[in-house]
Amino acid sequence: MTETNLPDTAAREKDLQKICGILKSAQQILILTHKSPDGDTLGSGFALCRALIKLGKTAAVVCSDPIPQRYDYLRAGEKNLETPDLIVAVDIATTDLLGDKLSCYKENIDLCIDHHGSNSRFAKFTFVDSNAAAACEIFTEVINKLGVEISKDIANCLYTGIATDTGCFRYSSTTAKTLKTAAALVEAGAESAKLNKLLFETVSKERLELEKLALQNLEYHCGGKAAVMVLSLDMMEKSGAEESETEGIPALPARIEGVEAGITLREKEDGSYKISVRTVKKLNASQICARFGGGGHSCAAGCRLTDNLETAKSEIVGAVRDALEKLPSED
Amino acid sequence: MTETNLPDTAAREKDLQKICGILKSAQQILILTHKSPDGDTLGSGFALCRALIKLGKTAAVVCSDPIPQRYDYLRAGEKNLETPDLIVAVDIATTDLLGDKLSCYKENIDLCIDHHGSNSRFAKFTFVDSNAAAACEIFTEVINKLGVEISKDIANCLYTGIATDTGCFRYSSTTAKTLKTAAALVEAGAESAKLNKLLFETVSKERLELEKLALQNLEYHCGGKAAVMVLSLDMMEKSGAEESETEGIPALPARIEGVEAGITLREKEDGSYKISVRTVKKLNASQICARFGGGGHSCAAGCRLTDNLETAKSEIVGAVRDALEKLPSED
Repeated sequence: MTETNLPDTAAREKDLQKICGILKSAQQILILTHKSPDGDTLGSGFALCRALIKLGKTAAVVCSDPIPQRYDYLRAGEKNLETPDLIVAVDIATTDLLGDKLSCYKENIDLCIDHHGSNSRFAKFTFVDSNAAAACEIFTEVINKLGVEISKDIANCLYTGIATDTGCFRYSSTTAKTLKTAAALVEAGAESAKLNKLLFETVSKERLELEKLALQNLEYHCGGKAAVMVLSLDMMEKSGAEESETEGIPALPARIEGVEAGITLREKEDGSYKISVRTVKKLNASQICARFGGGGHSCAAGCRLTDNLETAKSEIVGAVRDALEKLPSED
Repeated sequence: MTETNLPDTAAREKDLQKICGILKSAQQILILTHKSPDGDTLGSGFALCRALIKLGKTAAVVCSDPIPQRYDYLRAGEKNLETPDLIVAVDIATTDLLGDKLSCYKENIDLCIDHHGSNSRFAKFTFVDSNAAAACEIFTEVINKLGVEISKDIANCLYTGIATDTGCFRYSSTTAKTLKTAAALVEAGAESAKLNKLLFETVSKERLELEKLALQNLEYHCGGKAAVMVLSLDMMEKSGAEESETEGIPALPARIEGVEAGITLREKEDGSYKISVRTVKKLNASQICARFGGGGHSCAAGCRLTDNLETAKSEIVGAVRDALEKLPSED
């Protein structure tokens, strides 16, 4: 048996024990996190690293990309390990997600602990619980089973992963178990108020200025079923916002009541427009973007248009209008 | 003993038992919610109403203002009661919050259950737990103690109050108990994914327009430590937003990076300004508002100023500046 994705409690329990055995028998543990690291892969990696150090091990967390500064408080352990005797991948569904720097390890990963149902089982032993809202939900269990007391620092790592992967308990992946795990972490000392403020409540002056400028040109089309927003280079410059501060803005138009397609046109340095289409209900964003050589998921897709703004806007709105007209009537 | 705000578990337990006795001995119960009703007062009111109906009572939830359409799913019970034998106020800190239509009851309120530390103890028996993140956190306990099974509908009411009053578990008021209570409600059938989408992910065109107008006049004071926003009657009219759609806007200025006091001035029909102050770190919002006869929590409080906009703004900013100067240095 090399994987677990079963509701069978006994099998799950046995696999968790196996993981603990693997971790305990190693001395030098290298922990791999995924590229473009988020709160869950980093929270998982550093929580495990801190727990292993408490057990007297040497451990390091590595990543192909730099760790974003906002996650600095998670850091622990060695910078790297030259001769690890165990290599563990956390929150990594496929070896593509290792990124350039860590791809050298892809044939030698001993253990993978993950919550993505799509996990490609690349490790010698894989534990997947796709009911977990975050890998950190699984790591809370693993660390408890290792017999390591969850310190404030470990609790902060684990809380960070759970909170970021669930949009602070908003997403449909959040279960009663997720909430209970978070409660236990708060009891163990997780500074949830401070972390929530840092992770969710804080908006930079520049980002807010960008939002203001973007809202000023919000337009409705197709009888209010399409909302179109432009993010121009000029707005980026006026607001002073960094690239990373645009996160979440393309999701805004689709959140508007009655809107079935939220469209964002993002002006690029070469004068072209990167189009993002988010849909609700039955509209297929991927099909709409495919008309312009793009693609993606059925509810979030993208494409690129090289025309001027007005032409680009009318092309993408036209494609949405066509798609809306082809939808079967709801009545 | 007519009030409870004690960590003393035995006293708390005794008072909860007393509440259950009061509720059980009544037959026709009128439940008062606060004006400008939010998810917590309505969730509390309708959860209690549904629980009392299950106990064979007749109950009605009333409010001075119309119930926002988005909360329609909470509704239960009678429209009103002519001859109630018990009048209960839920999530109401002072009789001012009863609003015009319910002010007639202010001398006759038998029971008040609330989570505001500033509660003015206007009822014959008051139960305040200021550690509760939402009144619905208390009502979850009360309904359990009444021996009523928490149905899916009751769980939806209680979850709504807890989720809305904590910004979906984001605010610092969220405790381990809050998260455990939410977990129990999800286990009891609360449709958290559906409710979160409705309550947090959907924004009306009118509300977004109001946000845009409000952002256009955002000002920074005190070297960026105070952010001031105005919501004028003119903006309300231009945007077409309803009163209930202003929810959450007063929280915005305090979310800005570096801001320690977020101030919102809301113009009222009589030309006065309703001031909302949200603070982060050590600033005490309640003390700041007390200078103008207001009050609230240490991190969120309010007051009213009858001056013109510029004077009102400079008064409240002045009070914030004084409070900032009195803070001990952080170094």
